[in-house]
Amino acid sequence: MSGRIDARLAQLAVELPAPPVPVAAYVPYVQTGNLVFISGQVSFLGDDDSSAGKVGADLTPEQGQQAARNSALNSLAHLKNACGGDLDRVKRCVGLRIYVASAPDFTGQPAVGNGASELVVEIFGDAGKHSRAAVGVTALPLNCAVEVESVWEID
Amino acid sequence: MSGRIDARLAQLAVELPAPPVPVAAYVPYVQTGNLVFISGQVSFLGDDDSSAGKVGADLTPEQGQQAARNSALNSLAHLKNACGGDLDRVKRCVGLRIYVASAPDFTGQPAVGNGASELVVEIFGDAGKHSRAAVGVTALPLNCAVEVESVWEID
Amino acid sequence: MSGRIDARLAQLAVELPAPPVPVAAYVPYVQTGNLVFISGQVSFLGDDDSSAGKVGADLTPEQGQQAARNSALNSLAHLKNACGGDLDRVKRCVGLRIYVASAPDFTGQPAVGNGASELVVEIFGDAGKHSRAAVGVTALPLNCAVEVESVWEID
Repeated sequence: MSGRIDARLAQLAVELPAPPVPVAAYVPYVQTGNLVFISGQVSFLGDDDSSAGKVGADLTPEQGQQAARNSALNSLAHLKNACGGDLDRVKRCVGLRIYVASAPDFTGQPAVGNGASELVVEIFGDAGKHSRAAVGVTALPLNCAVEVESVWEID
Repeated sequence: MSGRIDARLAQLAVELPAPPVPVAAYVPYVQTGNLVFISGQVSFLGDDDSSAGKVGADLTPEQGQQAARNSALNSLAHLKNACGGDLDRVKRCVGLRIYVASAPDFTGQPAVGNGASELVVEIFGDAGKHSRAAVGVTALPLNCAVEVESVWEID
Repeated sequence: MSGRIDARLAQLAVELPAPPVPVAAYVPYVQTGNLVFISGQVSFLGDDDSSAGKVGADLTPEQGQQAARNSALNSLAHLKNACGGDLDRVKRCVGLRIYVASAPDFTGQPAVGNGASELVVEIFGDAGKHSRAAVGVTALPLNCAVEVESVWEID
């Protein structure tokens, strides 16, 4: 059964990015007990900063959804490191917190957040079903459209 | 002593709503160890979406406070499910995070948040005393005025 | 080795403020297991409310960084109480969440947050290395520029 999640990633044609280097004075994750707290991840994948701007103004909701998926991918890259490379150790996605840089009248954060949520459930199945909050904020680091924080239980 | 919190709810004439169905691809709560993480809850009670808009523009601070109370009620409805129906199992409200959709110059988030905080303390007494953050955000899902996330310790 | 962190504070000439009284119906911190959740701390130090306004409009990024440092100092004052006065009991800073009241086009939240992050690492060394999220919000309680929430592991 080893490599179960790696096999699932291959089946979904999901490739994890190189884990992004923190843009400031913090670390990508901290484990305490069997909980892993992953730092907020921006929606840029490597050099690709096309998911810049605010949803509802510069980006469509669909582009926002893609940005949320990017943030989840960056989160999973760090989670894999937290698991010593073995994502089969993930017992549960405890929670995702999804910050969406939003135009003042944009209230479609739930659909945007699904770009992250659906990816996590596709990959982990029942273990990927998580609690969540999605909120619309004024601006995010580096002008990215979405930032995702997450908490995971691993064994 | 069974039904202690149910009796307290009756004494306060507080009726818990039907737990709202998540508006996107997530679950209402996740338990890990003896901690329950409850998803962000909007301030609408069932079909009543009168708590829409931004505090300091569309809603008064008092209406915002009522909206925060609604979000807490929705949270408690899920918490009851997480406890298998028995709220006496609640050991502590660990924390509330209160997002207030705010006009740009509205800085009264603490009083708004009290609509949630005071309800929790009224119901649970010392076990309801919680850590908290209250912040003003640009916009919230479905245009609700307040969203509340929470963490609870249960036995 | 007792007083190791107190000695480090003295070496850095860092003086912890009196722990601020919560501005609403909550408590400064809650411990569950060996985790301490500290309430969101504003960036005012005692009566000094000079860190009011929004970064990128009323305050420069450098002033925002100082505001974040203030919020961290207030957090540490409560943490010390949570540890019964002995900061040597801190095992790890699990996470900081940094809310920056931001002008609509201000995206320098990471550098602002470093005002808090760097202080924590200076004081606690490796134990101070934390996960983090920094986001730009519309407005914060009392019009403060920065609010910091934190989670700590203690023994």
